[in-house]
Amino acid sequence: MLVNAYGAHAGDKPLEPLRITRRAPGAHDVQIDIAYCGICHSDLHQVRAEWAGTRFPCVPGHEIVGRVSAVGAQVSGFKVGDLVGIGCIVDSCKHCPECEAGLENYCDGMVGTYNGPTPDEPGWTLGGYSQKIVVHERFVLRVRHPVEQLAAVAPLLCAGITTYSPLRHWNTGPGKKVGVVGIGGLGHMGIKLAHAMGAHVVAFTTSDSKREAARALGADEVVVSRNTGEMAAHAKSFDLILDTVAAPHDLDVFLGLLKRDGTLTLVGAPPTPHPAPGVFNLIFKRRAIAGSLIGGIPETQEMLDFCAEHGIVADIELIRADQINIAYERMLKSDIKYRFVIDSATLAA
Amino acid sequence: MLVNAYGAHAGDKPLEPLRITRRAPGAHDVQIDIAYCGICHSDLHQVRAEWAGTRFPCVPGHEIVGRVSAVGAQVSGFKVGDLVGIGCIVDSCKHCPECEAGLENYCDGMVGTYNGPTPDEPGWTLGGYSQKIVVHERFVLRVRHPVEQLAAVAPLLCAGITTYSPLRHWNTGPGKKVGVVGIGGLGHMGIKLAHAMGAHVVAFTTSDSKREAARALGADEVVVSRNTGEMAAHAKSFDLILDTVAAPHDLDVFLGLLKRDGTLTLVGAPPTPHPAPGVFNLIFKRRAIAGSLIGGIPETQEMLDFCAEHGIVADIELIRADQINIAYERMLKSDIKYRFVIDSATLAA
Repeated sequence: MLVNAYGAHAGDKPLEPLRITRRAPGAHDVQIDIAYCGICHSDLHQVRAEWAGTRFPCVPGHEIVGRVSAVGAQVSGFKVGDLVGIGCIVDSCKHCPECEAGLENYCDGMVGTYNGPTPDEPGWTLGGYSQKIVVHERFVLRVRHPVEQLAAVAPLLCAGITTYSPLRHWNTGPGKKVGVVGIGGLGHMGIKLAHAMGAHVVAFTTSDSKREAARALGADEVVVSRNTGEMAAHAKSFDLILDTVAAPHDLDVFLGLLKRDGTLTLVGAPPTPHPAPGVFNLIFKRRAIAGSLIGGIPETQEMLDFCAEHGIVADIELIRADQINIAYERMLKSDIKYRFVIDSATLAA
Repeated sequence: MLVNAYGAHAGDKPLEPLRITRRAPGAHDVQIDIAYCGICHSDLHQVRAEWAGTRFPCVPGHEIVGRVSAVGAQVSGFKVGDLVGIGCIVDSCKHCPECEAGLENYCDGMVGTYNGPTPDEPGWTLGGYSQKIVVHERFVLRVRHPVEQLAAVAPLLCAGITTYSPLRHWNTGPGKKVGVVGIGGLGHMGIKLAHAMGAHVVAFTTSDSKREAARALGADEVVVSRNTGEMAAHAKSFDLILDTVAAPHDLDVFLGLLKRDGTLTLVGAPPTPHPAPGVFNLIFKRRAIAGSLIGGIPETQEMLDFCAEHGIVADIELIRADQINIAYERMLKSDIKYRFVIDSATLAA
């Protein structure tokens, strides 16, 4: 089946309308008519070949929501008309220890929603900047939000789970003090989620102008990380600091804010490493620097249900497909509060 | 009370015989006649002013064993004649959350056995390269090894607990695969302890010549870390890698060997940071880089008891006090298997 999409033919080319092929649903497949797709910074890195291995044409997009339009004969969990989501994963080996633990995100055979290996045409996966997608039912998430929130649900599928998973893994909850570094697509979700989990949330920003916005998102305190005095007031006090910044920066200033056994978890992926952190900050309080990658399918469902229950969605700006290239430029200037979402209906034209 | 000691008057001066003052035991103090004191790499860093803040004269030494020769009126746990040890800590605030948890090693008021603040003369603590030491009973450890092993027990007080604590904290035991990087003073203890805890132990060395020695210490496998093929065979397989190397080196090659949720724990403290580790190695398997600092007093006692039960001591070379400067030079060339211990009787002369 041929569907409309938006993608690029080379790393130095803008995205443009494409026609791509979707497979006919197999026995375990769910076919989804995409309603909205969020724009993640990873989309830009991949389509511009800033990360290794981009295959062209490249159709990004892994924050997908829509309605089921067909199901395979063996599909039991979904029916036509269901509101569903697809995140960053559309396949995995399904039998390794990670898959058995529901941590498909850490499976060595994890297949990304775009640029991943697949027997489908053209040999790599094509993402959510498109009208339809066909995915094995294991990787389809149920959306329980009211339908009128659907566009703002889309970013939960990546920005939401990328922050939810480490917050849960490192035991965010009442009595815990949690920092969120960076108030962008990921960070704004991190603040909302940590707040809803009951933690005392401190947002770190380099910009004094973001104080009010961070409070509005749910931050109990906002610290401008350039202000040494403000930072020092929080020394040795955090259980967890979630660092969402995708540009290389000094980690030591945040390590020093962790209490004993605290963790600085990186979810931003800069193209070059952060400056080398000192060893003494780690040794003297048994602190850790860790990383976290999106989340497994069961946890992504848990996150969606948590967000539906707590009325959490992303703050978005809805755009037409022909505005994607402009959106990328604005994203690079942080000129977005906080996530662009493509209205997939505009792909029909 | 004046006692003989060995120390230095400046960072660029050799160690030489000194006379130092020990306080009369207070109500909670234990006075110890030192029998042996191990030589730790930290001693060299501190006395040569390679770390900031060394105060002179500096008397190093925090791997101390000996016999109780006097106790204060309120001391209930020790009596004259007991075999005891003193490690890296001789005081702490005793009331912070860390102290209350028996993690005095992470107390902000932790007082090191040398170069720490004290009201005693000369205003900073003087360590175990001396005939006697007087310490609050809270920081005195009981030694249950046979007395003929006493010299080889000394290094347990630092090298032993520095490796025991992270091995325990990160759940070393049967079914776990644990790596130990570096086969020196710390590393040789790490191998012995991880083996005794029941883990599958892999020793990493840069030197092919250390294979046999590492096996003799208890390593199930030995990997020469320069051999890419040998390293690759262990990819994604370790629960914990304990890195004892105190010189800056590539951490990424070890991060890649960790399985999901694995931790690379640094216990070596290089004077300059390691080269910056990449973020993707952390993110893709939720791995962590952590640090660990010696251990708390209850855990140090647990370690000593564990070692007594399992017949574990350090491999040592006993020296006279007047050989300390030579020992330092040999230590810098790694010409020691694996720890120098000073026979404190030679201070009497």
